[in-house]
Amino acid sequence: MNTKMSSEMTEQPQVLGRLAERFGAIAEQVREVAAESGAVKGVAFLARGSSDNSALLGRYAIEQQTGLPTSLVAPSIVTVYKQRPELYRGWLLVALSQSGRTPEIVDIAGRYAECGASVVAVTNNPDSALARAARLHVALDAGPELAVPATKTVTSQMLAILAIAAGLGDADAGLSEADVARIPDAAATILADFAPVERVVAALAEHRGMAIVGRGACYPAALETALKLQETLGVMAHGFSSADFRHGPIAVCGPDAPAVLLAGSGPADDDTRALRSDLAARSAHVAELGTGPNADAAWPALGTMAECILATVRGQQLALATAAHLGVDPDQPTGLNKVTLTH
Amino acid sequence: MNTKMSSEMTEQPQVLGRLAERFGAIAEQVREVAAESGAVKGVAFLARGSSDNSALLGRYAIEQQTGLPTSLVAPSIVTVYKQRPELYRGWLLVALSQSGRTPEIVDIAGRYAECGASVVAVTNNPDSALARAARLHVALDAGPELAVPATKTVTSQMLAILAIAAGLGDADAGLSEADVARIPDAAATILADFAPVERVVAALAEHRGMAIVGRGACYPAALETALKLQETLGVMAHGFSSADFRHGPIAVCGPDAPAVLLAGSGPADDDTRALRSDLAARSAHVAELGTGPNADAAWPALGTMAECILATVRGQQLALATAAHLGVDPDQPTGLNKVTLTH
Repeated sequence: MNTKMSSEMTEQPQVLGRLAERFGAIAEQVREVAAESGAVKGVAFLARGSSDNSALLGRYAIEQQTGLPTSLVAPSIVTVYKQRPELYRGWLLVALSQSGRTPEIVDIAGRYAECGASVVAVTNNPDSALARAARLHVALDAGPELAVPATKTVTSQMLAILAIAAGLGDADAGLSEADVARIPDAAATILADFAPVERVVAALAEHRGMAIVGRGACYPAALETALKLQETLGVMAHGFSSADFRHGPIAVCGPDAPAVLLAGSGPADDDTRALRSDLAARSAHVAELGTGPNADAAWPALGTMAECILATVRGQQLALATAAHLGVDPDQPTGLNKVTLTH
Repeated sequence: MNTKMSSEMTEQPQVLGRLAERFGAIAEQVREVAAESGAVKGVAFLARGSSDNSALLGRYAIEQQTGLPTSLVAPSIVTVYKQRPELYRGWLLVALSQSGRTPEIVDIAGRYAECGASVVAVTNNPDSALARAARLHVALDAGPELAVPATKTVTSQMLAILAIAAGLGDADAGLSEADVARIPDAAATILADFAPVERVVAALAEHRGMAIVGRGACYPAALETALKLQETLGVMAHGFSSADFRHGPIAVCGPDAPAVLLAGSGPADDDTRALRSDLAARSAHVAELGTGPNADAAWPALGTMAECILATVRGQQLALATAAHLGVDPDQPTGLNKVTLTH
């Protein structure tokens, strides 16, 4: 299917490639910002929608690689309940918005800056209010994104965030130069092969509700895949952490509600694959994406937080293939706009 | 319907009443713990399942009332990725587990304590490993909870957390003594009146997927309501923040997928009620619970974070009434256990 969404998805290896070349430079810029404020006390992420899923990867990567306390900002604390973020002095605030124009994000970032947080903005728009107001702007340089479902701006946000994590940690804690260099090709390998999603799409597409399950690096990808299915197809897809899912929400799955297990080659992923038998006991159809005996043998294992990017691309493919199967236009879901205006 | 779940729900005013009497004493104990470590740097919450929804209320209440940075711990950072929480020295770790025996929670709390965090445990089991290991144990004193869907331990966790917030903030920032004293009766008022959920249950019960939407104090209640519907009925209920929902996930709602708007009398709630027209434009059935022109005129408005407790009780009633409507036993959902064992 020739859609804006599919063509923007196809650009991802190039976009990631350009960003991979700047990875070390971004990390170095972050190191300078961090040095200005002495020791960074913690990292808060400010985002909405797809960007919030990138932020979740950021909190995992930064906590794993640096041990720094991390937090996802609850925007209403500032906008509705009028609390000033004064105790975030010495924190880094990473504000994510592809347009850089979401008024709520721009407003809240400004308040954190006033209170002494160092704002790092990640946007696809260097001329935006958010980019201009930040202490450091990390440009995604992803080119215009026209489809409503964000794809290349999400995966490039994820890589940008891994670069920020690298700038905050020890040189050897996060991704090595060699790891980073492999990411664009790994994404290209995933993109070149629609077979894994083609195998599962028919059985999934007949259902209006499903669980998308992942853990660790694949958990943000599970949430992002669920969001793509929600906004492009109106499917009631619910993202879950494997650990939470097992002890309650698994009850939603059965003959009429399948599960997608999204699992890569990292240390958290066997926990997700282990759900296969619990789901079989409930007569729930299970689709496995990622790697493992029932999934994709050609999965380009990275074994790091960067696998979130690959799992996210696989999830985009699932949304696109389901749209094609159902004859739905994924570019312009009814009643949604690209720039979010939240009050 | 006479079930363990309904009888445990009915105990909530008494349980909340006992806790309300200890509210000031708990706040005072927290103040002492906080004083020991000089200035508390931030508050991290450690929880799974329903307790995670109480934790979310905690992060809202504490940020709103104290401005302290807050974070919800991602357990896999410690258990899977083996990061030591060394930089949480000087933080308060609030660990929530009704049984106090969830091994993962006990293990992670111990590691935070080793690293210099002050652990406050909130459990319904003073003899549990978690209670014994904590610097301060806040007992829910809720009596045995036998139904798998947690009810009275959740609302009492929420009140305990509001007491913890009160201990960390200025005396006049959080709930006043008068506010606290009103909560048990307000919960009793909600419990005595099943009419608001009886009005909406038939139209909702025919659907296997629905959105539960709230914001601010009602957002954790929306997530908790969704979880109750998931685990007691296998309904694919998805909790959303109103602000996120509007800009994408609303696409899941339509003639076959209704929405429940959970909105009280606080400053964030009009944003939720405003979704009514967006949902009508999608021909989605809308059920309004809480207060407002289309909901419950007898709602005992508190206007504070404590309304989360009332909205949570309303959500429990929705799950219970739906179970009765469908002839399902809510006490023992297939294949779920009370104590969670996560690795």
